[in-house]
Amino acid sequence: MDIYIGGVSTTRFGELWEKSLRGLIKEASFDCLVDAQVEKKQIEAVYVGNMLSGMLSGQQQLGPLATEEIGLDVFSCRVEGACASGGLAIHEAVNALLAGKFKTVMVIGVEKMTDRNQDFVSMGLMAAGSDAERQAGATFSALYALMAKAHMEKYQTTSQMLAAVAVKNHFHGFLNSKAQFPFTITIEQVLKSALISDPLRLLDCSPLTDGAAAVILTTDSKLVTRQNKVMIKSCEVATDTLGLAQRKSLTELVATQKAAQKAFYQAGISPSDVDVAELHDCFTIAEILALEDLGFYKKGEAAPRVLKGETRLGSKGLVTNTSGGLKSCGHPVGATGVKQLVEIVMQLRQDAGKKQVEKAKVGLCQNVGGSGATAVVTILTK
Amino acid sequence: MDIYIGGVSTTRFGELWEKSLRGLIKEASFDCLVDAQVEKKQIEAVYVGNMLSGMLSGQQQLGPLATEEIGLDVFSCRVEGACASGGLAIHEAVNALLAGKFKTVMVIGVEKMTDRNQDFVSMGLMAAGSDAERQAGATFSALYALMAKAHMEKYQTTSQMLAAVAVKNHFHGFLNSKAQFPFTITIEQVLKSALISDPLRLLDCSPLTDGAAAVILTTDSKLVTRQNKVMIKSCEVATDTLGLAQRKSLTELVATQKAAQKAFYQAGISPSDVDVAELHDCFTIAEILALEDLGFYKKGEAAPRVLKGETRLGSKGLVTNTSGGLKSCGHPVGATGVKQLVEIVMQLRQDAGKKQVEKAKVGLCQNVGGSGATAVVTILTK
Repeated sequence: MDIYIGGVSTTRFGELWEKSLRGLIKEASFDCLVDAQVEKKQIEAVYVGNMLSGMLSGQQQLGPLATEEIGLDVFSCRVEGACASGGLAIHEAVNALLAGKFKTVMVIGVEKMTDRNQDFVSMGLMAAGSDAERQAGATFSALYALMAKAHMEKYQTTSQMLAAVAVKNHFHGFLNSKAQFPFTITIEQVLKSALISDPLRLLDCSPLTDGAAAVILTTDSKLVTRQNKVMIKSCEVATDTLGLAQRKSLTELVATQKAAQKAFYQAGISPSDVDVAELHDCFTIAEILALEDLGFYKKGEAAPRVLKGETRLGSKGLVTNTSGGLKSCGHPVGATGVKQLVEIVMQLRQDAGKKQVEKAKVGLCQNVGGSGATAVVTILTK
Repeated sequence: MDIYIGGVSTTRFGELWEKSLRGLIKEASFDCLVDAQVEKKQIEAVYVGNMLSGMLSGQQQLGPLATEEIGLDVFSCRVEGACASGGLAIHEAVNALLAGKFKTVMVIGVEKMTDRNQDFVSMGLMAAGSDAERQAGATFSALYALMAKAHMEKYQTTSQMLAAVAVKNHFHGFLNSKAQFPFTITIEQVLKSALISDPLRLLDCSPLTDGAAAVILTTDSKLVTRQNKVMIKSCEVATDTLGLAQRKSLTELVATQKAAQKAFYQAGISPSDVDVAELHDCFTIAEILALEDLGFYKKGEAAPRVLKGETRLGSKGLVTNTSGGLKSCGHPVGATGVKQLVEIVMQLRQDAGKKQVEKAKVGLCQNVGGSGATAVVTILTK
């Protein structure tokens, strides 16, 4: 069964103190209906991806909250898998469509993170990790720093190479009017920024962000009136242990590898076919791992190539994180997986404006929960 | 496609201070594998229903936590819809099976509620309600008390009639070795218990509970070696507004009505065919509403009939909440929807011991989130 993208939208990402959780949900969902040119009564179900609203806003049951805001009384529920909540919500929506339960479904990703103090939010985010790591005082920067150290030791990856990921993504984010930090940075600035968790510096890390994104998925091709009909070819999920201590290797995310294998097989597409990808660059090292674990580069080869300018807009071959990625566009955790899909759809529709990748035909999203416990890989074509 | 129940289990319900969230997940999932007589490698996906672990235990991403505990690296995610989280997790698992994504799936419902002080837990639970209700200081007892008052006024329902629900469910719970409060009570005791929110008294209310339950669902009939093969005929969800203020009526839960209509239609079964049902009696009035909204009784007729002894073990016709319901068995919110399924499966297998409903062939579960914003109705046969 073919699954088409009816419409997409994202709110602006950033410190949106003037906007509530409800307001963000409403804005993203109504903009998405407008983009899709469908009436709300055609939406038969709503999936919401969100991680922290219970802990940070004292609000759960976001499924009915969303349908209440949209003005529907259809099926709805919230799906949670830490920073992969958005991707998982898409996966559940795809399943429901494949099961024939619904024809047209909306997926909303949302997170409101900047209204509480940062220590509290950091504690909240660590709820995505293992008990042992949390109790030992580790933060996600510390966990990804461990992976970065191991990668540097094994493959001679340098801080400059990591910094190049942030520089590239800020270059892309500079072209994105929805981005939290729409400005360019240099490698020198990254290397001079405050050390957060050795070797990761402030500008290696994605920020705390408010924002929402929405997509409408449908099996009814007539509902999609655009010429460029974008389709989801596959959406696959794999898991790994919550904690790093239980894993065999610190230089790979096995969940990403497994989800990618399933997704490429299902779509009948190979990594070399992909023109544009949104990768989960919560930290610069995470994009390097993703480029390798998804099969775009051999292990140890991605980092020097990114430093040379590969994966940057204008370069030949694959371009990654044209939205600015989590680093520059921002990372409202439950929204991220949905925003990735929005960006890829815009690219495949040739609607990405200044950040358009020429002749983009095949796109991929990779959304990760925690330090790699959940990975969602979605492949799209037009 | 037919969906069979491979196996079921519940932990004991109660104040289980000696057991952790992880421990409960492990106990329920391994007991379920034993009951199903399948090896863990046959489980291709795990859905976890849970509401409060982020807020109360600082732990989210329970999907990978569960697969880590079981020793699997398959797809997993957490589904949340307040007290309907367990029922929603079953719904998502059923969709995944119908989509052909997996053949055999485990659903785990879990909640750990008694380790924190009760005010904090009450605040957490109100995250299932509307912002306005929470900010006005309403608790769920207050919201259901409003519904009880309206029902009493409109249909001459009495406190004795409400109390009869609790008395019946405690009579059933007395026969359930897993129940939190396995003792009988009298109508007089209910009417003399402390007033919580007029007209609801302490013994009209379900308790805070720790516990977990698990089921294995499969489309592979050969995997089920038992003679009595129990099947899910339908699992449907509907939603309503989060808040009571936006609803037209306080004496009905429209989400339950809509989910029931869809579920009965899908199953090709009518209310009069149902022999045994687990209903969401978070408060005594909730079971009265459910008996009416599900179509077992006309509006206003359920309460006097329950007072006369209908729906009680040994009575002719439908018997409800043989597990003891949320009232006597306990209400670990994310586990409740899954435990309901476990009880109905035990009944249809004729494995319910002293609480067995004779010749039970058709069963129903009704699981509600918040004050009726989410309702899940599942129909089973053997």
